[in-house]
Amino acid sequence: MESNKIKISIIGSTGYVGAELVRGFVGHPYAEIIHLTSQSFAGKKFSDVYPVFRGVCDITLEEGDYVKIAQDSDLVITALPHGVSSKTVPVLLENGARVIDHSGDFRYKNLATYEKSYKLDHPHPELLGEAVYGLPEFYREELKTARLVANPGCYPTCSLIALAPFLTQGLIKTDSIIINAVSGVSGAGRKSDLAYAFCETDEAFKPYGAVGHRHTTEIAEQCGFLSAKAVEAGKATEADVVKAVTFTPHLAPFKRGMLASIYVRPSGVFEGVTSEKVNEVYQEFYSNETFVRVLENKVLPDVKSVYGSNYIDVNGMYDPETDMIKLFSAQDNLGKGAALQAIQAANVMFGLPEDTGLGSVIRGV
Amino acid sequence: MESNKIKISIIGSTGYVGAELVRGFVGHPYAEIIHLTSQSFAGKKFSDVYPVFRGVCDITLEEGDYVKIAQDSDLVITALPHGVSSKTVPVLLENGARVIDHSGDFRYKNLATYEKSYKLDHPHPELLGEAVYGLPEFYREELKTARLVANPGCYPTCSLIALAPFLTQGLIKTDSIIINAVSGVSGAGRKSDLAYAFCETDEAFKPYGAVGHRHTTEIAEQCGFLSAKAVEAGKATEADVVKAVTFTPHLAPFKRGMLASIYVRPSGVFEGVTSEKVNEVYQEFYSNETFVRVLENKVLPDVKSVYGSNYIDVNGMYDPETDMIKLFSAQDNLGKGAALQAIQAANVMFGLPEDTGLGSVIRGV
Amino acid sequence: MESNKIKISIIGSTGYVGAELVRGFVGHPYAEIIHLTSQSFAGKKFSDVYPVFRGVCDITLEEGDYVKIAQDSDLVITALPHGVSSKTVPVLLENGARVIDHSGDFRYKNLATYEKSYKLDHPHPELLGEAVYGLPEFYREELKTARLVANPGCYPTCSLIALAPFLTQGLIKTDSIIINAVSGVSGAGRKSDLAYAFCETDEAFKPYGAVGHRHTTEIAEQCGFLSAKAVEAGKATEADVVKAVTFTPHLAPFKRGMLASIYVRPSGVFEGVTSEKVNEVYQEFYSNETFVRVLENKVLPDVKSVYGSNYIDVNGMYDPETDMIKLFSAQDNLGKGAALQAIQAANVMFGLPEDTGLGSVIRGV
Amino acid sequence: MESNKIKISIIGSTGYVGAELVRGFVGHPYAEIIHLTSQSFAGKKFSDVYPVFRGVCDITLEEGDYVKIAQDSDLVITALPHGVSSKTVPVLLENGARVIDHSGDFRYKNLATYEKSYKLDHPHPELLGEAVYGLPEFYREELKTARLVANPGCYPTCSLIALAPFLTQGLIKTDSIIINAVSGVSGAGRKSDLAYAFCETDEAFKPYGAVGHRHTTEIAEQCGFLSAKAVEAGKATEADVVKAVTFTPHLAPFKRGMLASIYVRPSGVFEGVTSEKVNEVYQEFYSNETFVRVLENKVLPDVKSVYGSNYIDVNGMYDPETDMIKLFSAQDNLGKGAALQAIQAANVMFGLPEDTGLGSVIRGV
Repeated sequence: MESNKIKISIIGSTGYVGAELVRGFVGHPYAEIIHLTSQSFAGKKFSDVYPVFRGVCDITLEEGDYVKIAQDSDLVITALPHGVSSKTVPVLLENGARVIDHSGDFRYKNLATYEKSYKLDHPHPELLGEAVYGLPEFYREELKTARLVANPGCYPTCSLIALAPFLTQGLIKTDSIIINAVSGVSGAGRKSDLAYAFCETDEAFKPYGAVGHRHTTEIAEQCGFLSAKAVEAGKATEADVVKAVTFTPHLAPFKRGMLASIYVRPSGVFEGVTSEKVNEVYQEFYSNETFVRVLENKVLPDVKSVYGSNYIDVNGMYDPETDMIKLFSAQDNLGKGAALQAIQAANVMFGLPEDTGLGSVIRGV
Repeated sequence: MESNKIKISIIGSTGYVGAELVRGFVGHPYAEIIHLTSQSFAGKKFSDVYPVFRGVCDITLEEGDYVKIAQDSDLVITALPHGVSSKTVPVLLENGARVIDHSGDFRYKNLATYEKSYKLDHPHPELLGEAVYGLPEFYREELKTARLVANPGCYPTCSLIALAPFLTQGLIKTDSIIINAVSGVSGAGRKSDLAYAFCETDEAFKPYGAVGHRHTTEIAEQCGFLSAKAVEAGKATEADVVKAVTFTPHLAPFKRGMLASIYVRPSGVFEGVTSEKVNEVYQEFYSNETFVRVLENKVLPDVKSVYGSNYIDVNGMYDPETDMIKLFSAQDNLGKGAALQAIQAANVMFGLPEDTGLGSVIRGV
Repeated sequence: MESNKIKISIIGSTGYVGAELVRGFVGHPYAEIIHLTSQSFAGKKFSDVYPVFRGVCDITLEEGDYVKIAQDSDLVITALPHGVSSKTVPVLLENGARVIDHSGDFRYKNLATYEKSYKLDHPHPELLGEAVYGLPEFYREELKTARLVANPGCYPTCSLIALAPFLTQGLIKTDSIIINAVSGVSGAGRKSDLAYAFCETDEAFKPYGAVGHRHTTEIAEQCGFLSAKAVEAGKATEADVVKAVTFTPHLAPFKRGMLASIYVRPSGVFEGVTSEKVNEVYQEFYSNETFVRVLENKVLPDVKSVYGSNYIDVNGMYDPETDMIKLFSAQDNLGKGAALQAIQAANVMFGLPEDTGLGSVIRGV
Repeated sequence: MESNKIKISIIGSTGYVGAELVRGFVGHPYAEIIHLTSQSFAGKKFSDVYPVFRGVCDITLEEGDYVKIAQDSDLVITALPHGVSSKTVPVLLENGARVIDHSGDFRYKNLATYEKSYKLDHPHPELLGEAVYGLPEFYREELKTARLVANPGCYPTCSLIALAPFLTQGLIKTDSIIINAVSGVSGAGRKSDLAYAFCETDEAFKPYGAVGHRHTTEIAEQCGFLSAKAVEAGKATEADVVKAVTFTPHLAPFKRGMLASIYVRPSGVFEGVTSEKVNEVYQEFYSNETFVRVLENKVLPDVKSVYGSNYIDVNGMYDPETDMIKLFSAQDNLGKGAALQAIQAANVMFGLPEDTGLGSVIRGV
């Protein structure tokens, strides 16, 4: 082990998010993986579970002594179910590790919203205030010193990156934000479930969780924070702060990828709205962001173009017939939507250039 | 040839719609195919172009003498590009055939809307009034005696079947109808085009034609007619007649299938709206329809379940958090969205039970 | 119920083979389904398990009283695991039903081979002699009066149809028959198994069971019978009777379909072997068969062309550089490889034209 | 530009092989791309053609001044059609560049075999002797100083890596080497061709070029060289030197990946052959190779596990029933089968560790 590298451990490393974290970190020049845990596969090598990693990551999986793991590591990343993370993360923090958590347990500032959305009591609500929502594009400063980072949900990342330039500048009406989103099958996780069997999923396409999907409230809370900035800037009123959004996820027959198609209307602040101006808003807002690629005018995002990467592609158009703005964003649900965004956040946390280990991670054909 | 069968000819039979027409008619007990035409493959057997049809349909493709074809046939079905149909169909009609046309050329009642949408002058606008829009669920009576049927577009069929119960009864606000729709790749037709190559399309997902897709105005015109029925019934006012809709198509990596996800708000007429009531509206409206399957409460449509068939599955939900009704419909874009719907219409035109030859045409796994 | 129809019951109807049997029989003009059983889903409607069948087959699934089922039915089709069939089928026979069984339990004439291949003792070896191997192309006469039919395995059907013309006429050497075969994922059955999850199977391709797959001995036994005909005809000697074959199955990322690529060498009997002559052998041998489509010279079989049908496409080529004959056959593993072949056999058993209900069952695009 | 990096130019950079070369080199720490050429897209940015590369490689494509390109570059990689390479490569060499060529034009030592296989006269047969066959595992020493490297074909790489340990040690009979191979669709290149359209290719699987595919002779020539080593070592006789092989390629519905299933028989030299011993032969032969992963006994290669990487996975089994050895190898046809193998060769040519830039290039899920 080289002492100048960031010591990383991953709790719950054999799900698809865990595997993508491993893929990201084995190519990271300033990080080394110390511990990988798995309840199901403890004792096996990581590459026994994912043969693609043979010779790339042959670390033996541990059941996991969280105290020791926390003490050994600079950063522990948890890819655990909600309700489990809320109990595990505090142990890790107490023992000195910084933590990035992938569950919904620390993503909310409003405890009641969390408890209603997840139908759980939170055992450590005192951590909600401290936890930083791990979207580097919005919370970069807070991440630098964060002890606990709540990695955003995949749908929220995709939705919020698309909406932020318009919400923060009061350019859209906030009473009707409609997000129609599509995810690849890996979003359902790695499990033996007939619903995700090849013969059941190939050539299928359907909505699910059409009312009350948990990510709805996560998106709405963050949209609330973003729209509050427009109020601060005098471009909107308190009444314009987002309270709820319409969100519908769909399952599509590809392994990785996510597309959000968003329908909003321009507010009075958006003068002379055209497709070109919608594009300009994006260009300006994200001009310094490495991982948000604003496509040139009228080229629309495609999940194919972000596969395997930490990029999120965005663009939008205005339809004068119906006075509707359509916003589109595409990301890899395991990449920018989960594991690679966590690596981006880790880079910020440890003072590295944000694209370290992530700059050329793309898939070609 | 058996004289008691309906004599069918298909103009432009080697595209995907043409092939699906052939598939449908070879299993039809009261129809026989007389002529198949193809500009590109004249002289070859149909089964040379589509080897799956070897032994099933080995008819030799003709370049096509439209006068003779019309005289020989009871029904001619044209699967030609728009702008070509408008010149070919009149010749067929003049020579005594009844015609079902698959292009956009005869779908509109408003000439100006057609000419603006298709950027073409119409050579035979006098036929627009006569042409019957080939959705049997709405125009069954007119189809019985129709000389010219304009088979609806795939996106319009999917959208209109989902919206009709609500529009005709004034149950939804008509100023913001948002249709987010997804099509399989066969919708782009059978052609050598890199954009639809396997390596470019598999694991891709993207919006296209996000503003100004032609089906937008076709949907809007028919929504206008449907909403006018609510005015007639005293459940809405003239101001509620639909003038425009928001429509965004997307391309998904499966061969056949189409899903529409529609966002509308209940009007004051829809008292006590709930998900259950949305479902009841569907159940009542389509209780006598064979091919519209209203799913049981909270089961949502999936393109997998309609693959290869003339069925369209519908359901909807109401989200009280945002006062939004979400409607969903799934069909096979080549089935109910094109060729099999034409066979359904042909059955009506020739006085046959509407499901003749279509009742058990499904794909299992 | 119409009394002039064949009364069919299916035991184990909710697996993929069962569902394909239902799909086939609902479109069959002279058969009606009486009972469908399912251990897992008894009490539900068949269309609850397979929503694609809504309105097409809404029969309620029964746990199954085999005595009553046998008494009610003209034909019972069992789609049960091996080891279960061998106990269930005798009960059905005793109670007067004719039976088509899909397991391996009644496919062998040699008890020892069965018991070694399946690692099971057979509780009713007395039935092995009576059971007719359900390949209509080889055992048509025997099927007409058969009480018990053992529906062939999918790989054996594909391999034997390709090899039969050459084996029966002594045209190939029998000491080295190499069968490299590929199956779609539905061959693994309908089950919650991570190995067949979409994310694990899409874009995967691999051999499995490379030594000792059960179908190896089933193929070999039938090849023995076919090659014995060449001995009878004086075109080969006892030493040429096939005792073993080399067989390797592979799993490919498509739902349905199977391709066999077979490598054999011409014997001395095959004078002046060329690709053209290989094709002629097929043309002659299968000239009266509806479901074996011999492709024109040098067009090679493709699983796409047989999808959803009972067809099997064959062709072959001769490579003079290496004195090797390559034979290829493509079928749908659930169609000619399982359920639709059973319907073909049922048609023979009940004196119907062999293609009744099967003639136009194809998928187009 | 950093002067201590290897200056790379790619001729024909917008095909799939070209794009994979770009993907590989943008992540390579000691190489920089100087020129990219394209006949079709000159003047556009590389990322206009492949949007996935936005921000990763935005180099402007040139039509190509080969003299200047050669003078500017340390290494020029050509991804041109055969017959074009044979004219272009000499110009590049004359102007001082080292060259790796992807076509078949410089892969053969025997001119007659090339000219027969490619049906072309070779304009520069004098280069055939000099050209090094770019399989680092066999020609590592020659590559170090090579001026011209002929990158092997995808099928030959997959076949030869699997066969080499057995051929060089005389362990198998050489009169009947049967290679049944399967490729993903990207092997057909990037082009507008209906045969490779999504709707034509998805769920299809078929053999092609079943007799006389060009790679057959390329494999045979190299097998000849490998088997000659067994003669040198006294383990075989001149008669055992391979002259021809049986090879059949198939097209499978996945974008990238290749699997070879090879059937051979043990020679008298292979004492006590078992599956375990077959595995041991691999383990020993490839113990020092980074990119050849010998799977543990009885785990078989899967194209999924090598996707996007330069790895090739191998294993084999022995079937005592038929005295047959089955060998299996899986690689990415664009990776180890083309572009990434070229980067491996480039690393050897320029004295870098062989896995530079390639070590962790894998795809996870």
